[in-house]
Amino acid sequence: MSRFARICSFLCLSTLASADEGMWLYNNPPRQQLAEKYHFEPSTQWLEHLQKASVRFNSGGSGSFVSANGLVITNHHVGADTLQKLSSAEHNYLHDGFYAKTRTEEQRALDLELNVLEAIEDVTARVNAVVQPKMDSAAALAARRAAIAQIEKESKEQTGLRSDVVTLYQGGLYQLYRYKVFTDVRLVFAPEQQAAFYGGDPNNFEYPRYDLDICIFRVYENGQPAKIEQYLKFNSAGPQPNDFVFVSGNPGRTERELTITDLADFRDRRLPQYLATFYRREVAMMSYSARSFENARRAREDLFGVQNSRKAMRGMLGGLLDPAVFGKLEEAENNLRREFLKRAESEADFKKALDAYDKIKKAQVEIKNSANLYDYYEEERPRVTVYRQPRGFGGTLFKYARYLVRLAEERTKPNGERLPVFQDAALPSLELSLLSSEPVYDDFETLLLTDSLTDLTTRFGADDPWLQKVLADKSPENRAAELVSGTKLKDLAFRKKLWDADTATLKAANDPMLELAMMIDPTARAARKIFDSNEEVKKQAYGAIAKARFASRGANTYPDATFTLRLSYGTVRGYEEDGKSTPAFTDFAGLFARAAEHSNKAPFDLPSRWFERKDRLSLGTRFNFICDADIIGGNSGSPVVNQAGQFVGVIFDGNIHSLVLDYIYEDQQARAVSVDSTAILEALRKVYDAGPLADELTGQASPAQKVAVVGAVN
Amino acid sequence: MSRFARICSFLCLSTLASADEGMWLYNNPPRQQLAEKYHFEPSTQWLEHLQKASVRFNSGGSGSFVSANGLVITNHHVGADTLQKLSSAEHNYLHDGFYAKTRTEEQRALDLELNVLEAIEDVTARVNAVVQPKMDSAAALAARRAAIAQIEKESKEQTGLRSDVVTLYQGGLYQLYRYKVFTDVRLVFAPEQQAAFYGGDPNNFEYPRYDLDICIFRVYENGQPAKIEQYLKFNSAGPQPNDFVFVSGNPGRTERELTITDLADFRDRRLPQYLATFYRREVAMMSYSARSFENARRAREDLFGVQNSRKAMRGMLGGLLDPAVFGKLEEAENNLRREFLKRAESEADFKKALDAYDKIKKAQVEIKNSANLYDYYEEERPRVTVYRQPRGFGGTLFKYARYLVRLAEERTKPNGERLPVFQDAALPSLELSLLSSEPVYDDFETLLLTDSLTDLTTRFGADDPWLQKVLADKSPENRAAELVSGTKLKDLAFRKKLWDADTATLKAANDPMLELAMMIDPTARAARKIFDSNEEVKKQAYGAIAKARFASRGANTYPDATFTLRLSYGTVRGYEEDGKSTPAFTDFAGLFARAAEHSNKAPFDLPSRWFERKDRLSLGTRFNFICDADIIGGNSGSPVVNQAGQFVGVIFDGNIHSLVLDYIYEDQQARAVSVDSTAILEALRKVYDAGPLADELTGQASPAQKVAVVGAVN
Repeated sequence: MSRFARICSFLCLSTLASADEGMWLYNNPPRQQLAEKYHFEPSTQWLEHLQKASVRFNSGGSGSFVSANGLVITNHHVGADTLQKLSSAEHNYLHDGFYAKTRTEEQRALDLELNVLEAIEDVTARVNAVVQPKMDSAAALAARRAAIAQIEKESKEQTGLRSDVVTLYQGGLYQLYRYKVFTDVRLVFAPEQQAAFYGGDPNNFEYPRYDLDICIFRVYENGQPAKIEQYLKFNSAGPQPNDFVFVSGNPGRTERELTITDLADFRDRRLPQYLATFYRREVAMMSYSARSFENARRAREDLFGVQNSRKAMRGMLGGLLDPAVFGKLEEAENNLRREFLKRAESEADFKKALDAYDKIKKAQVEIKNSANLYDYYEEERPRVTVYRQPRGFGGTLFKYARYLVRLAEERTKPNGERLPVFQDAALPSLELSLLSSEPVYDDFETLLLTDSLTDLTTRFGADDPWLQKVLADKSPENRAAELVSGTKLKDLAFRKKLWDADTATLKAANDPMLELAMMIDPTARAARKIFDSNEEVKKQAYGAIAKARFASRGANTYPDATFTLRLSYGTVRGYEEDGKSTPAFTDFAGLFARAAEHSNKAPFDLPSRWFERKDRLSLGTRFNFICDADIIGGNSGSPVVNQAGQFVGVIFDGNIHSLVLDYIYEDQQARAVSVDSTAILEALRKVYDAGPLADELTGQASPAQKVAVVGAVN
Repeated sequence: MSRFARICSFLCLSTLASADEGMWLYNNPPRQQLAEKYHFEPSTQWLEHLQKASVRFNSGGSGSFVSANGLVITNHHVGADTLQKLSSAEHNYLHDGFYAKTRTEEQRALDLELNVLEAIEDVTARVNAVVQPKMDSAAALAARRAAIAQIEKESKEQTGLRSDVVTLYQGGLYQLYRYKVFTDVRLVFAPEQQAAFYGGDPNNFEYPRYDLDICIFRVYENGQPAKIEQYLKFNSAGPQPNDFVFVSGNPGRTERELTITDLADFRDRRLPQYLATFYRREVAMMSYSARSFENARRAREDLFGVQNSRKAMRGMLGGLLDPAVFGKLEEAENNLRREFLKRAESEADFKKALDAYDKIKKAQVEIKNSANLYDYYEEERPRVTVYRQPRGFGGTLFKYARYLVRLAEERTKPNGERLPVFQDAALPSLELSLLSSEPVYDDFETLLLTDSLTDLTTRFGADDPWLQKVLADKSPENRAAELVSGTKLKDLAFRKKLWDADTATLKAANDPMLELAMMIDPTARAARKIFDSNEEVKKQAYGAIAKARFASRGANTYPDATFTLRLSYGTVRGYEEDGKSTPAFTDFAGLFARAAEHSNKAPFDLPSRWFERKDRLSLGTRFNFICDADIIGGNSGSPVVNQAGQFVGVIFDGNIHSLVLDYIYEDQQARAVSVDSTAILEALRKVYDAGPLADELTGQASPAQKVAVVGAVN
């Protein structure tokens, strides 16, 4: 594809999203696009059905209800954290898989929270009303935060539902999202990681693929399987080539509304720094894992997470470093600014939008100047990951210490003035995370903390006097070992005891990790203050740009992803690359062929079960497929549904070309990768002896279910 | 060990090297120490025998002659580069091993050069005579470089021997080293890499070990096995616990004379930056290798090299980040400066030495300020590796381009004004490297070049106008692909044709890689000019400190390592760590036990041959052993000899505690790791069916050899 063709296609896109672009809000679906391109007009009932059958995993993924009795299907890699935490040296569910033949065998996840979106309400006017023109950015942030906390609290009290105010269009809109929450989530089925993540890191973000990347849970209420009205009927035939399909899920974050200033900072500073951190962590974990099977088991989930993020960020950086892509982004901004300029003299909002670009630039410089303290002491915010620990203090034990220290202090403040994680509405999620009984391994914790303290030390220089206090005049390695062996935070009972503790009690606990967290807290909070106030400046500036964009181009568009429910759509189709065409579907035969090609060596090895049952399998069964729907990280586990609203597959990856979707939609080569619904049934029945589960999915379990299915679909 | 004890032991060391410290010059051996501690007085003949039986590998390692017919034993990892280059998709000698049953099967290495030290001559006065007090540092450097080139050239012409002027004591002494050179070096035997590097990266720099890390070559002259007079008799019994042993080899580089300013720069800047590069390369190569067996084969040697350097530097950084270690180093410098201060008023040389510390500091700041250009465009100089390419331009093809471009220009200058690699005396080595027929793989080259161009881009920022010229308005990935696919430098005939080319001819060649190398050359050379002139300032300053140290403490000491021949000594003994004692020896039984513990999974898997022949082996045979001799990288492959001058083992590693030896000698836990001579014979005879080779080693091959052995040993 020539650069000219790309710019041309972009210019066409720049005024109205066409092609299959968009992560659309459920309260502003792409009616026009669907009608024009696909002659499809979704009814309100159709949309509500899909919305309420969609599930968000608080650990960072998506899923859907697929039975009347609470079955939820998602990806193996979304469930992997739970599989790891339920595992031990004796039972390695992550590696070996899991199947609960009866309901009593279903195992409760230690800290999973599932959210189902019930309603959306616009609260923009109420949030903006509290910000006075004369307020500085810190005051504006505080006022806005207080207003948001108040709205969330009221809603929670009135409805009993989880209530989050979501910032859309970079502050152009504020909307209240109300969720039904499930915290009793039990593991029903997972294949072996070998089958789920077949091809491992080398095949991640690639196509063709052969992955059974699924995990099935069941939600419970009051100790019984939850009765679910809105669930997706499981289509046994899967999609056909060129089928028109929908994806309903929670894309984590995109950067399509960012200014060139901000994007250049991602390209030149933030992405390279995150990558540097991931490179060092990956090497540290690989070395650790290579020492023994047990080490490999302990590190597996974190290692996969790091490899996944590293590969994703590498792809994003590669996109931004391509002058063709960056040129398109620059051109888009220039076009927008020209539109604003034309009306700036006569309309104040357009003048304000133009000024906003300079404000963003200035705030970005201030953030950059204090970034080391913020990233290393407060939290790093790499993209495509939920990791939010300070870069200088790794591991689960420090995370616990930070939470407890902050909880003690934040609880003394009015709800609206607390940091978001500690506000009343968020406390149940925090409790789930802090009081998890997941195993903590001293050696692995020491490894992570040593690495992050070493990174911290070399970032600030070993002679930094403040750092010497952090290290207590020891090497990073010795200090990490001392902290990990000395802390009692490994003990769940100890953490439970401290859940309600005030700062004095924490001090009296004489715990080295708590003491460290207390010591660095003022430094970390000071860095956050600078960061937050500049982020607020940016938020207001992005809000001004978004408002002007609305005014100029209308609202037939979608906001950047915010890990909230969105509707995407597209066509099942392959793509061309370097003159080779990659078809849309793979099949089981291809899986065995690939294993043979690699002499069944890791990560291209198959569990022996697959070989033993190869004869039973219908090898022509479609396994994975691709479509051009607009997705990003967070969409993992999203259902792919047909026009009838039936489940035909589950998204589990994007190809390498899709990584640029973070910044700009592209449909020549970017593709979302899914497991076919047919493959799921075939594997459950023939490989995993899980016929009853397949029956429940296809509605053969009880007559009641069949009725529900018929009633539920559009 | 308490900190007090460590500082105390250091203070004892600081005035006179005691314990088993030292990498001694052959023309200044530790006579006093050997006599006092071991009651051993080596004769001149004993020293000459060991010197001339020692071999340096130009690729960065050591070895020794072990038969009258030219057999040279070194490490597998020293020979690995050759094994990789002789391999193809059909024959993987690196992985599968190699044994030439007859001389006609011995395979000639593509670019190995072996050096045997014949004589040392002091040339300090002659080198220093050309530097006038009024010269600035650039003029001084040029004058010194010209004098050195002249000395080397004269010596080469007079003797026909390779002649290198070696800078010792940071410029305190200049000595002319004359070497006999062997370039017809043929591969005789190598075990499988699995057996040689048993335990892989997890066990690298660790103990206990079970590695058959050997590789055996034979040198030829005029198409016949070279007749070697001075070779080591192979001792079939190996060393005993607490035996006193010698190590003769070429330690690469130590930093024990560095000032605290320089050391702090290593700790805070250089080591972290090198590590960041190694982390990213390791991840890139691991990802590439995981894709297929063939990829893994192509990357294996480079990957091991990177992992090895990464682990070594991580250990060195860990040492410098330990306040106990750094405190000792600071105390040593303070002691020395106090000695100087006492005599500074009355003696000019001591005043000059004190001023030298400030000069080093200032030069170091200037080097640091221009380091990005130097490291990325000219060459990075990480420690513990011979890698000297610019960090921004990786891969073999760029290396070829840089050599050709510089050769064309440098050849037009008088010999003494050329960069060292292009001086007449060095041209044969350059030719060997440039005209090597080693295979070059497009995909692997593209991987390395993409990664380094990406690193370059993010270092300087994508908007850097100069960089945009380098990238030709393309992404790093596209630019790398274009350069690698477009260059003809892969073709040996093309390189041969250009060996004599002038700059105009190179320009006319229209080769994209050559054009890139030509375009960046002025930038790279400008950076080198700044670097070299500051290095010269440092060299003069270090020379002044060294001179004062001599004057204050006498010459009963040794200079920092310079990849030239040194004599170390020590005792075969274990060590204590965290209350556990690690014995000095391992045996074959331990090897099989470790493989079983890891279910024979990589990197703890053994070649099947070892299991098939387990019954034949005497399992109690000693395999690896440790001693406290003072070694560092470059000593790999060094012979360990007993007082009778017999070969009892070959050094292949240091434990993790030995990495700090770069900066300071330590003998509580730091140990050198060797393969026992007994294990070598047992494995050759019983595992590899290489009885005739074992016979040649033990002198059972012919009566002629037996006579030679008797005659050769002290």
